[in-house]
Amino acid sequence: MHPLHLFSPAVYNWIGSTAATCTTISFLPQLIRVWRRKSAHDISLTMFLFFSFGVFCWLVYGLGIGSGPIAAANAVTLALALAILVLKLRYDRRSPSGASPAAPIK
Amino acid sequence: MHPLHLFSPAVYNWIGSTAATCTTISFLPQLIRVWRRKSAHDISLTMFLFFSFGVFCWLVYGLGIGSGPIAAANAVTLALALAILVLKLRYDRRSPSGASPAAPIK
Repeated sequence: MHPLHLFSPAVYNWIGSTAATCTTISFLPQLIRVWRRKSAHDISLTMFLFFSFGVFCWLVYGLGIGSGPIAAANAVTLALALAILVLKLRYDRRSPSGASPAAPIK
Repeated sequence: MHPLHLFSPAVYNWIGSTAATCTTISFLPQLIRVWRRKSAHDISLTMFLFFSFGVFCWLVYGLGIGSGPIAAANAVTLALALAILVLKLRYDRRSPSGASPAAPIK
């Protein structure tokens, strides 16, 4: 596949850094939301199992090819995804019916 | 950062492919869950806005550096993330109280 020369390499590097930052920190508001609502019934366990395993593989890959940014971004994402996974398992056990006990969040 | 030579380059390529596959397809069970429950109150709108924008940047980056795998994986992820975002907006409007109207899923 040929590179698309819409922007300069410096701009593409900036776009890549923005991409990594956004996809990594996006899991923080999800973690905060689950924590505040004490509910994660709408969240898929299968998603977070696959996703966490995938991010773990990205982390190993980043270490393997010596890419600090890939390793660091995926270490942070893995920590956030695992925290969401642990809260989901905890809250689903408390309220297995699927009825949300949580107050709405504005 | 120096590469970690635990495995051969071929094994690291395989780990990278596994990583991309897992993090991409992980959003499919989340989409199916939201669709079946008709509820997405536990899902963070902020997460999916940041995440979708980040994945869009990865897609542009992949096209810019001419990486077919990065572009393709992120095109699929973007489609899945946007579908979840649209369903969340639709279901939250129907039931804005935050009380889950959904039946439990086994």
